[in-house]
Amino acid sequence: MKLYDCAPAPSPRRVRVFLAEKGETLPTVQIDLANREQLSPEFRARNPRCTVPVLELDDGTCLVETLAICHYLEHRFPAPPLMGRDLREQALVLQWNARIESEGLAAVAEAFRNQSRGFRDRALPGPQNFAQLPELAERGRVRATAFLDMLDEHLSDSPYIVGSHYSLADITALIAVDFARWIRLEPGDRRHLARWHRSVSSRPSAAA
Amino acid sequence: MKLYDCAPAPSPRRVRVFLAEKGETLPTVQIDLANREQLSPEFRARNPRCTVPVLELDDGTCLVETLAICHYLEHRFPAPPLMGRDLREQALVLQWNARIESEGLAAVAEAFRNQSRGFRDRALPGPQNFAQLPELAERGRVRATAFLDMLDEHLSDSPYIVGSHYSLADITALIAVDFARWIRLEPGDRRHLARWHRSVSSRPSAAA
Repeated sequence: MKLYDCAPAPSPRRVRVFLAEKGETLPTVQIDLANREQLSPEFRARNPRCTVPVLELDDGTCLVETLAICHYLEHRFPAPPLMGRDLREQALVLQWNARIESEGLAAVAEAFRNQSRGFRDRALPGPQNFAQLPELAERGRVRATAFLDMLDEHLSDSPYIVGSHYSLADITALIAVDFARWIRLEPGDRRHLARWHRSVSSRPSAAA
Repeated sequence: MKLYDCAPAPSPRRVRVFLAEKGETLPTVQIDLANREQLSPEFRARNPRCTVPVLELDDGTCLVETLAICHYLEHRFPAPPLMGRDLREQALVLQWNARIESEGLAAVAEAFRNQSRGFRDRALPGPQNFAQLPELAERGRVRATAFLDMLDEHLSDSPYIVGSHYSLADITALIAVDFARWIRLEPGDRRHLARWHRSVSSRPSAAA
């Protein structure tokens, strides 16, 4: 297996933290997003969507979605389980992972990519260029703020995102909350979110 | 178990087709989205996101994400498998399901919700109102067209979305392609996509 990564980017960090929790490392290739290496013919041959992370399997199959990569790694390296310990918990991890992707990561990306100079004409990832829309920068910020409020309330009676065990849902949420700093949103005085964020940030895996 | 559904809406149809392929039915409650029943206090108590489908488990847990619901049903009703027959195939089903959600369903929804009179101030689902943006109607249409082209190319050397077995990825793609008609996009002369669409539409489950 080989991992295609970009150290400063939020999405591939999800896979790095996931592997660190498993105590595993993989041969890794850095893709230079700042210089648009993801748009090169070599990388497109692996992932026509032009995104990282990509996990290349030994038979040449390329997994290009974080959830698919994590599912594969969960079964290759079962301990400790990070995607649920029974069926109900598995379903809740998938559910929270999806919610945090759409309400958190996508909201922050909407705000960030529609306002940053470096993303002019790159409001969406992928091979095609899309113009920035100032209204989307504002909408993304409103949605990201609502996301932080929602997580704070959810964590008021739960130590982790799904019950009493750290899971992929916590990893996705950690990266979404850290990504929100890119648009100057912080946990601030949301005390349940802040307590959880200190806890998951203090795990050695958070440095991955 | 109890399913909260809305017969005309695309997302809950994914769960209905999934169940039909398993030969299962569940007690079902219709939620009247046209009259905004999803925003009622009763429904919000089950799903604060105000979306269908919702699967209520016997312990009262509500699963509010299609993928989480399908994962749960896949393990409760294992035959026939619809989420992959081995680890690699499982990962590819998750991957294609996610791609079709973001490149297909979300793109069509972006076009449809930003242009339809009935969705004024409802450009996004959920408890909060967001204004329509004409630029997003156009962007969604461009993305949905690229999605149909991408699927056509992918299906040129594959009978189903993931190899030689019908899966959740086909269900999500069927619903995305049918949803595209709401913005007047059809498979048209994309012949691989049209062949696949005829095939999956002729299965009895497609009527679910």
